[in-house]
Amino acid sequence: MADVLTQDETPAARGRRAGGGREAKRAARSARSSQSVPYITRKIPYYEVLDEEGLAQIEYNADTILEEVGIDFRDDAEALEIWRAAGAQVTGERVRIPRGLCRKIVQDSAPREFTQHARNPERSVVIGGKNTVFAPAYGSPFVRNLDDGRRYATIEDFRNFVKLAYMANSLHHSGGTICEPVDLPVNKRHFDMVYSHMKYSDKPFMGSVTHPDRATDTVEMAKILFGDNWLDPLTGKPKTVVINLINANSPMTFDETMLGAAKVYARANQATIITPFILAGAMSPVTVAGTAAQTLAEALAGMAFVQLVNPGAPVVLGSFASSISMQSGAPTFGTPEPALVLYVMAALARRLGVPFRSGGGLCGSKISDAQAASESANTLIPTCLGGVNFVLHTAGWLEGGLSMGYEKFIMDVDQAGMMHTLLAGVDMSENGQAMSAIREVGPGKHFLGCAHTQANFESAFYRSPITDNNSFEQWEAEGSRDLTQRANSMWKKLLSEYEAPPLDPAVDEALLAYIKRRKDSFPDSNV
Amino acid sequence: MADVLTQDETPAARGRRAGGGREAKRAARSARSSQSVPYITRKIPYYEVLDEEGLAQIEYNADTILEEVGIDFRDDAEALEIWRAAGAQVTGERVRIPRGLCRKIVQDSAPREFTQHARNPERSVVIGGKNTVFAPAYGSPFVRNLDDGRRYATIEDFRNFVKLAYMANSLHHSGGTICEPVDLPVNKRHFDMVYSHMKYSDKPFMGSVTHPDRATDTVEMAKILFGDNWLDPLTGKPKTVVINLINANSPMTFDETMLGAAKVYARANQATIITPFILAGAMSPVTVAGTAAQTLAEALAGMAFVQLVNPGAPVVLGSFASSISMQSGAPTFGTPEPALVLYVMAALARRLGVPFRSGGGLCGSKISDAQAASESANTLIPTCLGGVNFVLHTAGWLEGGLSMGYEKFIMDVDQAGMMHTLLAGVDMSENGQAMSAIREVGPGKHFLGCAHTQANFESAFYRSPITDNNSFEQWEAEGSRDLTQRANSMWKKLLSEYEAPPLDPAVDEALLAYIKRRKDSFPDSNV
Repeated sequence: MADVLTQDETPAARGRRAGGGREAKRAARSARSSQSVPYITRKIPYYEVLDEEGLAQIEYNADTILEEVGIDFRDDAEALEIWRAAGAQVTGERVRIPRGLCRKIVQDSAPREFTQHARNPERSVVIGGKNTVFAPAYGSPFVRNLDDGRRYATIEDFRNFVKLAYMANSLHHSGGTICEPVDLPVNKRHFDMVYSHMKYSDKPFMGSVTHPDRATDTVEMAKILFGDNWLDPLTGKPKTVVINLINANSPMTFDETMLGAAKVYARANQATIITPFILAGAMSPVTVAGTAAQTLAEALAGMAFVQLVNPGAPVVLGSFASSISMQSGAPTFGTPEPALVLYVMAALARRLGVPFRSGGGLCGSKISDAQAASESANTLIPTCLGGVNFVLHTAGWLEGGLSMGYEKFIMDVDQAGMMHTLLAGVDMSENGQAMSAIREVGPGKHFLGCAHTQANFESAFYRSPITDNNSFEQWEAEGSRDLTQRANSMWKKLLSEYEAPPLDPAVDEALLAYIKRRKDSFPDSNV
Repeated sequence: MADVLTQDETPAARGRRAGGGREAKRAARSARSSQSVPYITRKIPYYEVLDEEGLAQIEYNADTILEEVGIDFRDDAEALEIWRAAGAQVTGERVRIPRGLCRKIVQDSAPREFTQHARNPERSVVIGGKNTVFAPAYGSPFVRNLDDGRRYATIEDFRNFVKLAYMANSLHHSGGTICEPVDLPVNKRHFDMVYSHMKYSDKPFMGSVTHPDRATDTVEMAKILFGDNWLDPLTGKPKTVVINLINANSPMTFDETMLGAAKVYARANQATIITPFILAGAMSPVTVAGTAAQTLAEALAGMAFVQLVNPGAPVVLGSFASSISMQSGAPTFGTPEPALVLYVMAALARRLGVPFRSGGGLCGSKISDAQAASESANTLIPTCLGGVNFVLHTAGWLEGGLSMGYEKFIMDVDQAGMMHTLLAGVDMSENGQAMSAIREVGPGKHFLGCAHTQANFESAFYRSPITDNNSFEQWEAEGSRDLTQRANSMWKKLLSEYEAPPLDPAVDEALLAYIKRRKDSFPDSNV
């Protein structure tokens, strides 16, 4: 697995700049081997923490919640009518769903996996099955970097992160509301966000969910972007080209905004991720099994609702579950309990037969220090071993999602790169077994120069572009920089080298015209 | 799972100092729930990356290495004679061992698990099976902290780390050469190291392996320490009270120092960890499967040797495998390939039926920054999921083992604490399922005050004593400290509060007398 970012911050490149001939050759070989994949298809087994009996018990409990406790569908008469027609018991806004009904609805029509098309077909991703798709973090009002500290995000920051995600080999997706461009009016910023994804990247992206009208704008802009490719000639239905985050208001509540957006996307055959957003202890019980049962109940209700609105529309089971500090009530991330929830939920999604979204590089730390790194790793590794299909929040997340970090983004991209190697598993080919090397070298010698090592030089070992493995003396001579400082150099270098993917000027004009017309049609507002 | 260190750096404790009544009650409850276990018995499954066919192939390849390539046993005529008598083909110092012989020797007599007794019986650990024992890092010539930067280690540092390990609930073991006391002569510092473990801790510890005479000194001091408890009345054999690190000189070589120490310990029924020390690409092939086959071959040869010396002596299969930078040749840690090796080796040890040592909190970073934290997590999580029984290098490791970090130690202890919770798995009791909470709270409410939350308040969620989850504003008001700075405060506080476990003064005098007599019997030397 080669570098996930540019090659030029590697020790080899530093050697090359210093004129090293051998190092230069190595760097050239390394650069040739640099490649990206549109998404990961895992070759290692899933890790599961619960046995059949435990998983079945949680499924039973989820059905008990749906049948006896019920789910509130708020301020959406149509939703209540849909549920009544499907056989649920509706009392006020409380919907109680007979045991097994949600599962049946979902399994009858929801796809086990689906393709989210990118405008560049080589970037299209398959969500579900053995596949993992890494997307940037989502939703922070602040950004942070070493130069400015923490400040409110702007559309310029948003564009920067779209560009950085586009350049990152280990990210497969452009994400959605990477950060909130708070310099733009609340009711119009979705135009600029969606346009930025379309213009500055050719990776798949996410749509607006903050109002049904904004979901409709997303769909209309996608129609313009995809043009003749909007409809699938085989099915006559729209291709799935946006994926959209529909959070439950846990516990056991969906609100009209999310329901409205979900309906718009479902009817346009676009994908929705139904995600109970849970800080256990506040929005669910303090236990893993209780949180998992509630998450499954809420997700089942949301996914079944989407299937009732448009059977066959792609839907993803989402789980965002973290814990809180029982001392202060503050949310905590990267602790062991959310990892256990993740493993359980991933197994439950597989049993249900739907794609799964969870995890990422979550942390509570305010800065990209060791706390941030530990917490992120404690989330990202379970994400990969557990089998998450769509990984929102892979890169950039700081401070419980309140802040998007430039340096953190670069560090997380590197970790995501390592996960490509981990998920590729053990090469058991004859070359992988390497018996020829062991026979050639023998006791007491070294392997650096042997034929097998030379033949596998380019692909051997994941290469991080930002970690420092030089000697203490060399590291000190180069300024004793920590990882954050090296990442700071990296994102600036990347932004300075960014080149936009080509976009048909006619499409670009049409998008801008649509945006102008729509923006002019109603006044700015910050609600 | 309660705090792994003192309670007093928690937000609750800060609240208490500020006079908060409710917070004070919480802190008191939290302190009551603080408890340690002598070692962890896992309740979650193992993670394995290879199937039966892959593992069998690696076992076959290991036997091919033993039979066809052979292992060098250097400068030890007795070892060669032992192998000849066992049926190996000995040519010069090259020992070629018939297919299956090592496995048979090990399986005939090596225990699947064993107890390492501590002088405090409540601290004795069971090594093997479903158990995990966390020990500090081992072997660094330097120490590092925020105050001094990096400097050579002294016996004072050594004692400090013994004290810190003694106070750390999440470490079960005092370790061995935690850092090299370079202020003491090379040929006598083992007395002070072993004595420090005996005096300043009552957890189990490791012996000296740098010369057979020093191994003998360790055994003699252990006899004094354990006195009437040295011999097991049931077997008449010495109890196993020290565990000792016997590294192979990879590739495929054992030297006289290690063989000599191994013989001393085996004959005294003390435990040895046979560990091929491998930086893949230099000391083994660049591939995971090749490195695993070579590691298994070397470990099998070493373990079989120990069993030939004294059948039934406790022995552990060790694997220390990391990678190198193919650009610079520098060792790298926390990369994905060593994690894959670890998962494979853990499975192979289980198939063989011996305890397994690997992993820890390894990193290449010079400082306790985000690089150190990511790399350490990328090692520690596989350590726990893969099923390592004896985890050397759990806490303190920096710079590829060249430096022992005071702050890093505290940070690693916290991560080890989290692993206790992870390894405890999912509570599927009625209380764990928490349906009463979900029924009580219902849609749209919060769980903070419900009866179930109140009843589980003390034990809910792992509590880190050093992470900061407060609001940005509060964190900033408290000085915008990073994790390293908070860890710096913590180790100083712990050392200031340290109280030695009681030691019979007569035993202490006897130990000191033995050391004086032995030290006076030969001149100081630094070789």
